[in-house]
Amino acid sequence: MERLLHKHAGLFTDFYELSMAQGWHAAGRAEAPAAFDYFFRQNPFGGGYVLFAGLGDLLEILEAYSFGEDDLAYLATLGFHRPFLDYLEKFRFKGTIWSAREGEVVFPLEPVVRVEGTLLEGQLIETLLLNLLNFQSLVATKASRVTAAARGRRVVDFGLRRAQGMAGIQASRAAAIGGVEATSNVYAAALWGLTPAGTQAHAWIQSFPDELSSFRAYAEAFPEGCTLLVDTYDTLRSGVPNAVKVAKELEAKGGSLSGIRLDSGDLAYLSKKSRQILDDAGLTQVKIVVSNQLDENIVKSLLDQKAPINAFGVGTHLITAQGTPALDGVYKLSMLDGEPRLKLTENLSKASLPGVKKVVRYLDAEGNFFADGIHFADEKPAAVIHHPAQSNQKSRVAQCFPENLLFKMMEGGRTLSTWSVSEAAAYAQGRLAKLPSEHKRFENPHVYKVGASKALLDLRKDLIRKYLGDPEE
Amino acid sequence: MERLLHKHAGLFTDFYELSMAQGWHAAGRAEAPAAFDYFFRQNPFGGGYVLFAGLGDLLEILEAYSFGEDDLAYLATLGFHRPFLDYLEKFRFKGTIWSAREGEVVFPLEPVVRVEGTLLEGQLIETLLLNLLNFQSLVATKASRVTAAARGRRVVDFGLRRAQGMAGIQASRAAAIGGVEATSNVYAAALWGLTPAGTQAHAWIQSFPDELSSFRAYAEAFPEGCTLLVDTYDTLRSGVPNAVKVAKELEAKGGSLSGIRLDSGDLAYLSKKSRQILDDAGLTQVKIVVSNQLDENIVKSLLDQKAPINAFGVGTHLITAQGTPALDGVYKLSMLDGEPRLKLTENLSKASLPGVKKVVRYLDAEGNFFADGIHFADEKPAAVIHHPAQSNQKSRVAQCFPENLLFKMMEGGRTLSTWSVSEAAAYAQGRLAKLPSEHKRFENPHVYKVGASKALLDLRKDLIRKYLGDPEE
Repeated sequence: MERLLHKHAGLFTDFYELSMAQGWHAAGRAEAPAAFDYFFRQNPFGGGYVLFAGLGDLLEILEAYSFGEDDLAYLATLGFHRPFLDYLEKFRFKGTIWSAREGEVVFPLEPVVRVEGTLLEGQLIETLLLNLLNFQSLVATKASRVTAAARGRRVVDFGLRRAQGMAGIQASRAAAIGGVEATSNVYAAALWGLTPAGTQAHAWIQSFPDELSSFRAYAEAFPEGCTLLVDTYDTLRSGVPNAVKVAKELEAKGGSLSGIRLDSGDLAYLSKKSRQILDDAGLTQVKIVVSNQLDENIVKSLLDQKAPINAFGVGTHLITAQGTPALDGVYKLSMLDGEPRLKLTENLSKASLPGVKKVVRYLDAEGNFFADGIHFADEKPAAVIHHPAQSNQKSRVAQCFPENLLFKMMEGGRTLSTWSVSEAAAYAQGRLAKLPSEHKRFENPHVYKVGASKALLDLRKDLIRKYLGDPEE
Repeated sequence: MERLLHKHAGLFTDFYELSMAQGWHAAGRAEAPAAFDYFFRQNPFGGGYVLFAGLGDLLEILEAYSFGEDDLAYLATLGFHRPFLDYLEKFRFKGTIWSAREGEVVFPLEPVVRVEGTLLEGQLIETLLLNLLNFQSLVATKASRVTAAARGRRVVDFGLRRAQGMAGIQASRAAAIGGVEATSNVYAAALWGLTPAGTQAHAWIQSFPDELSSFRAYAEAFPEGCTLLVDTYDTLRSGVPNAVKVAKELEAKGGSLSGIRLDSGDLAYLSKKSRQILDDAGLTQVKIVVSNQLDENIVKSLLDQKAPINAFGVGTHLITAQGTPALDGVYKLSMLDGEPRLKLTENLSKASLPGVKKVVRYLDAEGNFFADGIHFADEKPAAVIHHPAQSNQKSRVAQCFPENLLFKMMEGGRTLSTWSVSEAAAYAQGRLAKLPSEHKRFENPHVYKVGASKALLDLRKDLIRKYLGDPEE
């Protein structure tokens, strides 16, 4: 299945990336060696973590990244210069990418991805990288919250119709990494190897003279297993009793009914009453699927009420990452010409961390996540890490087991290793299991410790002094 | 420029649309004549209207709508039957679409689009239609709020990096219809004929030994007009003074500086101080552009403080429709086999409106919008319209001037008329001007009257009685 963004990926960028690229090209600075960090500042949804996603998609697009004839013709109409357009015509991304694995649990301020390459190529991919990683990490995180709330029950992505346009394609991929088992989105399923799922709409029921005949027609069309939408007229007096009739007819022919779907009303009450009717008819195997404006809090509330629900169809709130519709990830120059660089901000303690860095995850004796440390790439794991903004706040990690979080995923523009969506999803489940529950709860989660090495914070202090002068002078 | 969604548009759908299509095909019901309405229930952002967008995009995709060889091969792996796949292979959308014009001001409950065709084709395009119209109308509405707050000053879409994945492409189109003048998104600009715009990132400044040399290099690369980012080190002590120097150097060579951009700090304070420095240097023509987490409320607040800002770069909050990330538009069967249909809901007064309908806009003596009436397509404009939920609430419209809101835009699958994005944007401005300001204010806007004809509400009552029995019996 063809990827939509592969063509014209070069134009899927902010205009200023191309302006700057032309400027550097003209100034002879295009090939200066550089490094950039991708990181975010705040966990979304008031939560305690981010589930990193989008990497596989990014690497695949970067391998194909180029400017086609019509792309260049368009840029020429905007006044870009011939020598630069000639440069773009031959341009391929040849950089090296170190990154957390897709499905990794990551935290604010730590570099999740490091891009090494020329100044021009590193900058040129900024918008594409931010667009893909910010959104997919956001939806994967949301999905992990919804699936956690569902406590092992099946969650299906029903979001395409309310997705933000074509965002639906990438959202369904990210939702799968976050633990969603199936999707209504057929294109995303085809593209990413996801499981497509769906039942029928109210229009199906309305298209027949009555509910029972609509159920019969559907069961006839899909005798190998179908789910019937029971809330078109009256769920308990008409929908469920008619579903029972059809289930019995199917059984008589050797088939069986898979489930019923409730899409309106009080889902806790209706699921309990429906379960009773089904069980009384001996249909204990028929599952109850619910949908209608669900999110992690409603899913949790339904199960807290012991609603006998087997699967949740989650749409709008999942696909648009309701609550925090954008992750605030940024991409900052950290090294140029072999020299560390940083981005100052109004609040100096929030200046970016300079230099080529790695992230070390410190595990406790049980193998659970205890803290993350940001270090220079060539530093050894530390005994103590320091809060990046208040360096007098320290955490001892000497007793912990260190592991590296960033791996070389692409070198010279070639992908070194790839994971399928299901591999990333499996990895995510394993990693989330190692994150202590106080960081995963929905209300006021405990803040996970992210620190930096003293050497790194000292360098930042030196560079700030160099740029702005010594505040004490 | 090739459209990304044209290929595989058939798969850009919910799985159940295809299941139902196969079911109707097998049951011999595929070709039953049907009509569907697209409408929404609630204005987003706590506002008083929706700016309708996405139609041109939808019509273009519907004209190309088909199932390719690899699409069908994929569907075969999912178990779809051969006769149905053969049907899909030849499938083209041949329906007729009546719709409000793109850029129209529309309101809850009224049918904004009516699709007439076969039951199968009408249902098959549901997800695609909802996806395109919901999101683009949402962003166009958001953009109209931001541009209204900017009171004639230029607004530029900077959102791509925080957009929900590929949503950025369609969002930039919709933002333009809502009044945004330019976009950072190069692909969207190429595709839709928008104006691309952008300056430089902090990385440009950091890539030179100091700020002044970075400004000089940029001015040299873009002598015909450039905007300098002045907040990398210290806006008032370094950024603006350096921009003044470069502006003077440019003037000496016959060029000129277009503007400066502020991207952090207190934008009201900094814009006033920067304006003073520029004016004192005789650079009154240099514009001030601001960006950084702007939305309609911050833009309004800045101008209320008399901040001397010439242009606003609006990103995350515009592109993700912050506040209401999804429009709740739905698509309901309203006619089948020549018989009116409706969708019941828990709250019967919210049941959908049956039959083939039109929308009449009633204008007052000044030509401003007074109320909208929903009527059968063959009804005459009314003297009185009734509240759709509380039919005893009436509005007299006898003294008003009626105009039809829905036009035949597509017939037999061929588009009858198309507008460019800029035509739709111009239409939107004209229509918004006719909406009284009490419906446009951000806080507690006055609810615009939308009513229905008595005949329509009577039919709905009859149909509810037919489906559910007389509640008084």
